[in-house]
Amino acid sequence: MNDSVRIVEVGPRDGLQNEKTIVPAADKIALIDRLSATGLRSIEATSFVSPRWVPQLADAAEVYSGIARRPGVRYPVLVPNETGYDRARAVGVEEVAVFTAASEAFNQRNINASVDASLERFAPVLERARADGVRVRGYVSTVLGCPYQGEVPVADVVRVAERLHAMGCYEVSLGDTIGIGTPRRAREMLRAVAAAVPMPALAVHFHDTRGQALANILACLEEGVRVVDAAVAGTGGCPYATGASGNVATEDVVFMLDGLGMATGVDLDGLIDTGRWLSALLGRENGSKVGRAGRSGTAG
Amino acid sequence: MNDSVRIVEVGPRDGLQNEKTIVPAADKIALIDRLSATGLRSIEATSFVSPRWVPQLADAAEVYSGIARRPGVRYPVLVPNETGYDRARAVGVEEVAVFTAASEAFNQRNINASVDASLERFAPVLERARADGVRVRGYVSTVLGCPYQGEVPVADVVRVAERLHAMGCYEVSLGDTIGIGTPRRAREMLRAVAAAVPMPALAVHFHDTRGQALANILACLEEGVRVVDAAVAGTGGCPYATGASGNVATEDVVFMLDGLGMATGVDLDGLIDTGRWLSALLGRENGSKVGRAGRSGTAG
Repeated sequence: MNDSVRIVEVGPRDGLQNEKTIVPAADKIALIDRLSATGLRSIEATSFVSPRWVPQLADAAEVYSGIARRPGVRYPVLVPNETGYDRARAVGVEEVAVFTAASEAFNQRNINASVDASLERFAPVLERARADGVRVRGYVSTVLGCPYQGEVPVADVVRVAERLHAMGCYEVSLGDTIGIGTPRRAREMLRAVAAAVPMPALAVHFHDTRGQALANILACLEEGVRVVDAAVAGTGGCPYATGASGNVATEDVVFMLDGLGMATGVDLDGLIDTGRWLSALLGRENGSKVGRAGRSGTAG
Repeated sequence: MNDSVRIVEVGPRDGLQNEKTIVPAADKIALIDRLSATGLRSIEATSFVSPRWVPQLADAAEVYSGIARRPGVRYPVLVPNETGYDRARAVGVEEVAVFTAASEAFNQRNINASVDASLERFAPVLERARADGVRVRGYVSTVLGCPYQGEVPVADVVRVAERLHAMGCYEVSLGDTIGIGTPRRAREMLRAVAAAVPMPALAVHFHDTRGQALANILACLEEGVRVVDAAVAGTGGCPYATGASGNVATEDVVFMLDGLGMATGVDLDGLIDTGRWLSALLGRENGSKVGRAGRSGTAG
């Protein structure tokens, strides 16, 4: 597996939108700029969903406008519909992300729409993005289980991923939203999807709710995936609450990839510093074990 | 990998000896009896080292005598030398464990002896055990790195493991004491050792200091190991201290193995209950993510 891996850093969006603490725009901007300085090439910056849904990211336009754009770095933002797309484009966004779930029950509860209806909702966004030369990333959540319906058939994951790709998403990120997956199931799911969507167009997105994220990522790397979503400091869901569902920590992923000899281009020391700074800002324990322990095992 | 795995539960020994809280003997006995009730077949019960070294386990004889021995369950205890062996045998111990490190620097600092001198120290223990029909397990620590010398050559790990096996240890447990390993290095180390000691006589022992333990275990399972050490609730080193070095949590290992279809014979629900009970007793956060979140991802 001597290969390179692209990390999609989702801390500023998927992380912060699920933290209790609301971070001021200036700190969000500082976070994103610190992250780009570590060598990360994809940083999901914010979300242009309704502030009523996600008050944590109500400052999306201000944040996006304030980033010091670094050449070669992509700053995708989440958009739920054309309104969000318009708001994002008004501040110069060049890449967007759309999201749906593989689970009907989850989509109904989350956005009050069927999976197919949610895909139809994106259609105009994808059409306009194509016309505007805007890249679109697609998220499929609940790929290994759903909090409402339990099991999610792999065929449903394949169908939704295939649709997103066919509609124009250059990359489809497969998310284990509730962190219920284990390596064999993760591998089998990925293999099934990769039979319908080319592996280079797939990413994996694991939450570490049951500590399985790195093992799942390892299995998916062995299966051939080369894009991994992660959030600095394991943000997203308080790590002490029951059912905590933080994203896998970027530091822990990079530490593993470094050990596997898979290049990420990311400066782990800078990333650890950023995660510690963010954890202090949020007033919470660092969700990255590498961030807590440090990369070196050598005593003074 | 449809196969069965034996878990060696080390929480009552490797876990509790590294916790700040000193647990009363009655609670230790209750812990061990709860663990055996979950179906665990190997439970390292305590350590007959000098109480001056490990005050947490000064009550070794009382604890061992108090266990409700369950048929088919082994209760090994750690012994550092013949004195410890005598104390253990006096209360009826039928399996002991001896320990050394692959790192010279670690052995010097830890027990003020070279690796070879530490092996010579065991020799009479192993001879007597053979005569007494007592099984002996061997630990090799610092197999993927050492806090004092940094890198540990794989050849040193192989040499020490081979010696322990040749001296009569039925099983040699390879320990990443400082939790510095990543899957490729873990796999390569195991493969090298397995060329000298038969794989069925090897176990892996990971600390989750940098969150890599489950991924390392997965890689080692793929390589063929079928014995895994773990500690309920991830005990052993406060998870919040810098350089925290808790053992991988048994709950998280069993959750993964269940998902891989690898039988352990362990009742995960009972194990989760025990880990929660122990965490409350220790007054610390549960070091098992499965213990914190629960096994089910389904909301009410």
